[in-house]
Amino acid sequence: LDGITIGGLADKIGMSKSGVFAHFGSRDDLQKATLRAYSAYFADVVLRTAIAEPRGLPRLVAIFNRWAELVSTEGKGCILISSASEFDDRPGAIRDELIYWVTAWQKELYTAIMQSIQCHHLPETIDIEQLVFELYGLILILHHDARLLRSANSLSRAKAGLKRLLASYAS
Amino acid sequence: LDGITIGGLADKIGMSKSGVFAHFGSRDDLQKATLRAYSAYFADVVLRTAIAEPRGLPRLVAIFNRWAELVSTEGKGCILISSASEFDDRPGAIRDELIYWVTAWQKELYTAIMQSIQCHHLPETIDIEQLVFELYGLILILHHDARLLRSANSLSRAKAGLKRLLASYAS
Repeated sequence: LDGITIGGLADKIGMSKSGVFAHFGSRDDLQKATLRAYSAYFADVVLRTAIAEPRGLPRLVAIFNRWAELVSTEGKGCILISSASEFDDRPGAIRDELIYWVTAWQKELYTAIMQSIQCHHLPETIDIEQLVFELYGLILILHHDARLLRSANSLSRAKAGLKRLLASYAS
Repeated sequence: LDGITIGGLADKIGMSKSGVFAHFGSRDDLQKATLRAYSAYFADVVLRTAIAEPRGLPRLVAIFNRWAELVSTEGKGCILISSASEFDDRPGAIRDELIYWVTAWQKELYTAIMQSIQCHHLPETIDIEQLVFELYGLILILHHDARLLRSANSLSRAKAGLKRLLASYAS
């Protein structure tokens, strides 16, 4: 996210720096707008298409698979993930905006798990936040291994991890 | 890691920029030296003390717990993790150095799991690399939630995740 500057964007889209500044205001505003735009894109790619699947486990698995494919696609990655360690120790408006979107996404996962319980696809006794935590961990290691280590099989590892995770929670 | 510059370090330790440059050479060399120094510190804190535990699961769990405590300590975090999304799309000497240390660490985890199999604490049939992947994922989400979201209970969530993970692999 730090790579996004008024000057850099002006160069890229062939506008003057003052033109970009007039549109977005400060660099903070530009970075916040980027996070908002990315989050809208993210919800569209991951959530909107998954909602076509039946409520409960089929939808939860579809969300996970689309999310996994997004973060492991070469040259894409996920701004919500890459910005996390960039801003975790930098208090301010960007960090607050990032926390807002990450928390909103964790709530969507919470909802999908809760619906799986309501559909009797997962037992009532499970700790939903713990499952969100572990699901998210699989996506983070996928993002890490696919992008840093270029591991060829990390997408299938993430999917295998989800399968084992859900089986372990179902029993 | 990108925050580490010849000028910044010179300021911090009260040396001239040319003095720091004479010692470390280029900024790339300085960042590589930082990764090497951190990895030595990391091995000391996480691995050396865990090796005092008996071979097998007790040692594997000790490694995980020390690692988990390190990455979730306020103001510390882990350079190997925070640098991963910083350099995953920037080919070059720093990325290569980072990959070297991350891979070396994954090999240590592999060894600890293999020893757990040899001690009959885990079944022979498990996919060791898959378990390394999932273990690492728990640490990444801990790093994420403890540092970005300041979740109070993420350390206990990571430890609960490990317990469930090992139980699921043991059966």
